[in-house]
Amino acid sequence: MNTGPVVVSVPDEGYAAGLAGLAGVETLVWPMRGPHPRVGELRFVVAPYLQRVAYDELLAGAEVLQAVQIQSAGYEDVLPLLPVGVTLCNAAGVHDASTAELAVALALSSQRGLPGFLVRQERHEWEDWSLRGSLADSRVLLLGYGQIGRAIASRLRPFEVELTVVASRPRAGDDLVDWVHGVGRLPDLAAAADILMVVVPLTDATRRLIDRDLLARLPDGALVVNVARGAIVDTDALVAECASGRLRAALDVTDPEPLPPGHPLWSTPGVIVTPHAGGATRAMRPRSLALIRRQVEALRDGRQLANVVT
Amino acid sequence: MNTGPVVVSVPDEGYAAGLAGLAGVETLVWPMRGPHPRVGELRFVVAPYLQRVAYDELLAGAEVLQAVQIQSAGYEDVLPLLPVGVTLCNAAGVHDASTAELAVALALSSQRGLPGFLVRQERHEWEDWSLRGSLADSRVLLLGYGQIGRAIASRLRPFEVELTVVASRPRAGDDLVDWVHGVGRLPDLAAAADILMVVVPLTDATRRLIDRDLLARLPDGALVVNVARGAIVDTDALVAECASGRLRAALDVTDPEPLPPGHPLWSTPGVIVTPHAGGATRAMRPRSLALIRRQVEALRDGRQLANVVT
Repeated sequence: MNTGPVVVSVPDEGYAAGLAGLAGVETLVWPMRGPHPRVGELRFVVAPYLQRVAYDELLAGAEVLQAVQIQSAGYEDVLPLLPVGVTLCNAAGVHDASTAELAVALALSSQRGLPGFLVRQERHEWEDWSLRGSLADSRVLLLGYGQIGRAIASRLRPFEVELTVVASRPRAGDDLVDWVHGVGRLPDLAAAADILMVVVPLTDATRRLIDRDLLARLPDGALVVNVARGAIVDTDALVAECASGRLRAALDVTDPEPLPPGHPLWSTPGVIVTPHAGGATRAMRPRSLALIRRQVEALRDGRQLANVVT
Repeated sequence: MNTGPVVVSVPDEGYAAGLAGLAGVETLVWPMRGPHPRVGELRFVVAPYLQRVAYDELLAGAEVLQAVQIQSAGYEDVLPLLPVGVTLCNAAGVHDASTAELAVALALSSQRGLPGFLVRQERHEWEDWSLRGSLADSRVLLLGYGQIGRAIASRLRPFEVELTVVASRPRAGDDLVDWVHGVGRLPDLAAAADILMVVVPLTDATRRLIDRDLLARLPDGALVVNVARGAIVDTDALVAECASGRLRAALDVTDPEPLPPGHPLWSTPGVIVTPHAGGATRAMRPRSLALIRRQVEALRDGRQLANVVT
C-alpha cells in the first residue's frame, strides 16, 4: 500500500498551479521532451497537448504508474506506445466546445464565402451584392455523434438547418435529433446532404470511410467539413472533386498531417485548411484543468478514473 | 371602389413566378431603374434589394399606390423619398436568419483567427499549435434586441458564451435572456464585454452611439462586430483602436459605404470587412417571397399589411 503523496506530472507550470492545494498530491512539471529523474515515483502522468511523445522510452522506468492522461480526444497514436498495465485516459469533453465551434465556424465561412471576402479586402474591393450561400436551409449530415458530435448538433440547431445524424449503430434520438442513423445509411443520406460534417474517431472502420464513391454521392456544390482525423477522408479523391469545382471542403485535419508545402490541398479552389486548431483555444485550459483535478482526486481517493479508453 | 385586379410590381421574374396563381392579382416586373408606363395602376410596389432607387421621381405618377415593400430591414434612406400617403413596409424577418448567422460567422472567424489561417494557407504554412481565442467563455454584449438581435441570441446560446443584451429600454427577458438592459447601462456593460455585437437600427439616438469613449471602455483585445449600419460606430475612433492593436473589429457595414479603395479600414490589422453581405444569401429569397405573398393577399383582401414602418 502506497501511503506517500500521489506523485503526478503535468506538462507545464500552468497546470501545476491549477493543482496547487490538492492535499496528498505532489505535482512535478514534466514536458515529456526528455527523461524525468523521478519517473519511478509517478502514479499519474498528464501528457502535453498535440506533441509527439516517446511514451515507450520515457515511461520505461515508471514502476508505479497507474494512468496517462492525454489532452486530445483521439488516442490512436498513443495506445501502441503505452507500457502494459497503464491505463489511458483521453480528454473527451475538454475540446467539445472548442472543436464544435470550429466545425460551425468552418461551415459558416465556406457557406458565406468569407475567404473570398478576405481576398477582396486585401485588394480594397467592395463587391456588389450577389446572393451567396447560407448555413440556413442547408441539409447537414453529421457523421459521428459522440460528445463532440452532440456539441456540434446543439450549436447547429438554431441556425435553421435540416440536421441528420449518422453514427456507428442506429439508435433512438435525444433532445437534439429524432433519430441516429446507422453508418450503413451513410451512402443514401449523403445524396441529400449540402454539408457533410465528419467527427468520428479514426478506427479501422472509419479509415477512408469518406472514399471516392461516397464523395461522388454528395450533391453538386456540397461542402465537406472534417474536424476529426484526415485519414477518414480519401484526400486524393477529395482534391479531385474540389479541383473540378463540384465539391468544397473545410478541413481542420488532413492526411498527411502536417500538410507539407506543395500539397495540392493547400491551393485547391474551394478548400479551406486550418492547422488542426480545433481544440487549441483558451477555452481548453479551464476545461482540461477541471478534468485533471477530478482525475487526480479520484486516483488519490481510490475512485475510478473518468475517460478510460483501455 | 377599385374592382379590377390588384396591380403589383416586383423587381424580377423570380418574384413574379413566386406570385403566380394569386387570384385577383396582376404582377408586373419593374426593376425600378427607370420609369414604368403603368405606374399609375400600381397599388403595391416591391423594391429591388440593396439598390438606390429614386422613389420620388419614379413614383410621381403613382396615383393609386398604397404601399411600397422594401427588401431590407433598414429604411432610413427610403423614408424621405416616398410620396405622401404611401405606406412603407420593411423586410423585418426576411433577413433574420441570414444576418444573424453572418454576425456569428464574423465573431467566430475573428475569435478563432481564420483570416490568419487563410494567409498561411496561401503560403502553404502549417502553423504549429498555439492557444488561440474562442467564442466559448466569451462575454458577449449584444446591442439591439429586435428580431435580428433575438436571432443572434438564439444562435449564440449553445456556444457557451456569457450573453448580455442591451436595447433602447430596459425590460424583462424572455426564453433567451433573463433581462434586457436599457441603453443607459451600455458604458458600464461595455467594460466587461469581450465581444460587442451591434444590431440596432440607425436613428438619431444610435448614430455614433459607439463613439471614442465607448470604445475606450471595452477591455483590451475586445472585438466589435457590426451587422447593423456603419454610422452607429465612430469609424475613425475604431480604426485608431484597432491600429494600435488594442481592439479588433468584424464589420459587414461601414461608414462610408461602399468603403472606397484606400480607406484605412481595409488594411487595419485585426479588422475584417465584408461588403454588406448580411442579408444577401439564398436563404433570403424564400423568406422574402413568403412575406410578399402575405402582403399582396392582405392588400387584395383588405386586411392590414405587416411590417408597416410609417
